[in-house]
Amino acid sequence: MQTIRVETPSAKYDVIAGSGLIQTLAPRIERIAGRLPRRVFVLTSGPIWALWGEAFLASFAEEPIVLFLEPGEKFKTLGSVDKLLRQMARAGGDRGSLLIAFGGGIVGDVGGFLAAIYMRGIAYVQVPTTFLAQVDSSVGGKTGVNLPEGKNLVGSFNHPLAVFADIAVLGTLPARELRAGLMESIKAGIIRDRALLRFMDEHAAEVLGRDAKALEKVIAASIRMKAGVVNRDERENGLRMILNLGHTVGHALEQATGYKALLHGEAVGWGMIAALFLARRRGTITASQFERLEILIHLYGPLPALKVKAKRVIAATGGDKKNVGGVRRFVLPIGIGDAGVVEDVTPAELDAAVAYMLAQAAEKPKAEKKAR
Amino acid sequence: MQTIRVETPSAKYDVIAGSGLIQTLAPRIERIAGRLPRRVFVLTSGPIWALWGEAFLASFAEEPIVLFLEPGEKFKTLGSVDKLLRQMARAGGDRGSLLIAFGGGIVGDVGGFLAAIYMRGIAYVQVPTTFLAQVDSSVGGKTGVNLPEGKNLVGSFNHPLAVFADIAVLGTLPARELRAGLMESIKAGIIRDRALLRFMDEHAAEVLGRDAKALEKVIAASIRMKAGVVNRDERENGLRMILNLGHTVGHALEQATGYKALLHGEAVGWGMIAALFLARRRGTITASQFERLEILIHLYGPLPALKVKAKRVIAATGGDKKNVGGVRRFVLPIGIGDAGVVEDVTPAELDAAVAYMLAQAAEKPKAEKKAR
Repeated sequence: MQTIRVETPSAKYDVIAGSGLIQTLAPRIERIAGRLPRRVFVLTSGPIWALWGEAFLASFAEEPIVLFLEPGEKFKTLGSVDKLLRQMARAGGDRGSLLIAFGGGIVGDVGGFLAAIYMRGIAYVQVPTTFLAQVDSSVGGKTGVNLPEGKNLVGSFNHPLAVFADIAVLGTLPARELRAGLMESIKAGIIRDRALLRFMDEHAAEVLGRDAKALEKVIAASIRMKAGVVNRDERENGLRMILNLGHTVGHALEQATGYKALLHGEAVGWGMIAALFLARRRGTITASQFERLEILIHLYGPLPALKVKAKRVIAATGGDKKNVGGVRRFVLPIGIGDAGVVEDVTPAELDAAVAYMLAQAAEKPKAEKKAR
Repeated sequence: MQTIRVETPSAKYDVIAGSGLIQTLAPRIERIAGRLPRRVFVLTSGPIWALWGEAFLASFAEEPIVLFLEPGEKFKTLGSVDKLLRQMARAGGDRGSLLIAFGGGIVGDVGGFLAAIYMRGIAYVQVPTTFLAQVDSSVGGKTGVNLPEGKNLVGSFNHPLAVFADIAVLGTLPARELRAGLMESIKAGIIRDRALLRFMDEHAAEVLGRDAKALEKVIAASIRMKAGVVNRDERENGLRMILNLGHTVGHALEQATGYKALLHGEAVGWGMIAALFLARRRGTITASQFERLEILIHLYGPLPALKVKAKRVIAATGGDKKNVGGVRRFVLPIGIGDAGVVEDVTPAELDAAVAYMLAQAAEKPKAEKKAR
């Protein structure tokens, strides 16, 4: 078990990563929050609750009130938030209530947002159940939902009391989701942690085979990287921007494909390919670094093939949240282990990067064979 | 012109009260926020914009994007928020955008909430146009909307960059709204400011006749009182609770009458009568203080007659946001100029207070004649 401390100007809390946490949640939360309040809400999704609900309830003396969010990005909406807030009000939730977000990234984002705005804010705890949510969305306090106009356009910065990342829960995670989540760990390595990248290079079989020790190592390192960045830049004014490597094109891909064809991590995987291409062109990474990173991304693939017009992807990059005052921002790696933000990517550069990525994405995936 | 400083752990800003502010808004905001961003949004309501839109636009070199919220409590919903957020996204709002809430309390509450959650937070400015909004809802950072289950159940604490309370705008305010707003000033006097209460006692004719000096004095004193309380207790953990004098029963009345029969200030006026009754019974105010305060409330009336069952009002007090862990909290005055929170109001006491209030409220209003 590993504990990673997050310390920002507005919150201090621990992320605990290890096996068997969910069977012992209630006493763990009580140690942090004091006695559990009269109303404890659990936001989860049907599939997760079917698999892990019983284990979850094991440590609670009084049964919490379970709220369900239907699985899928298309339910990450203000409509769902409205429905859930009303359920909380009808169940007698008050300002002292506690919410536990028990599920993947969407459950975490919606749960954190519910906690941010229900009665102007109640306490909450994250119990992420996917690899991606464990390494990424449960750390940093970003919460929210989508609008039809774009992803994550509505939300709050709202930190949990604690995050419990239970490695054992990943045992029931579909392989595709695990691989998609690992893209964020690759990202972590590229922008901040050469050692993590080397470990992932050398131990791909153990990681993809869900060896508990290997997973804990990758997860803890990824969380530590993110916590380190968030600690220094809570509000995404500067450094935190680098966490968006692969996200400018990644978000555009998700939007252009209607959030259906790709898991978030997969979109980031493709987005990283585009960003790496740009970085190689500009010389912030060498050709051999480019090749090594591209192979690594495919090693943890396959990234799904894509059928989408370059034009649509490029247009969608214009609506990215990272743009302030109409500037299109891009995160580019600088060698391996560092990254920076550029604002002067030309249309020609963007065209070339998207074309390169889409040419690859049109081929049949072949990387999976290599990885096994 | 008077400037009142609000300083909380999370925000420092000025509330400026005076005449003729809205014609000079743009340079005033630039002095605080620096150059205006590319996208400035104004949230307002049709009637206010028809009266004051031209004056508002006078100082803006580039025309801001005007968003409309339909007037009335029934549009203070997540549905409206959804619609407005989408308009902002479609108009190209980004993280650097600024929102100006130009209207009454509802526009302020919704505008502050939009700014809190659009792209996880953009800057905003309050330009309240009703007496109530100027003295109450624009100071303290409370923002949000209603659920069908209760008022203000959803929201954020989100402070503006500045508040501009233009006394001249009150010239077009309906008399009923002015009188309702003045209930919050009476509240301010009761809980914290004997001098304000004395002034209101002695200068009712000037205040109700909208004498600019008298209004500025009452408004500035009311804001100063609220700012002083908020400065010491931003998150409503302790002291700030006393601002809710009259609100436990007031909110219940609003809920029990479907938010239609009463303006918020009127509900608070009736709620204060109930709270004063309780306080007299418990001896925290004397019979003569009770009488004086009750007369003052009616002097600034009339409070509308009510047709509502005591049972419904009492039931509705159970859903008040101020309840934590099922305890029903009441703010009671202690003499004049102080107040405290009690949690042990018995059902019998509550019954008696609501019965007393409703008996008065069933009579035809007669106070107005006295006041003129």
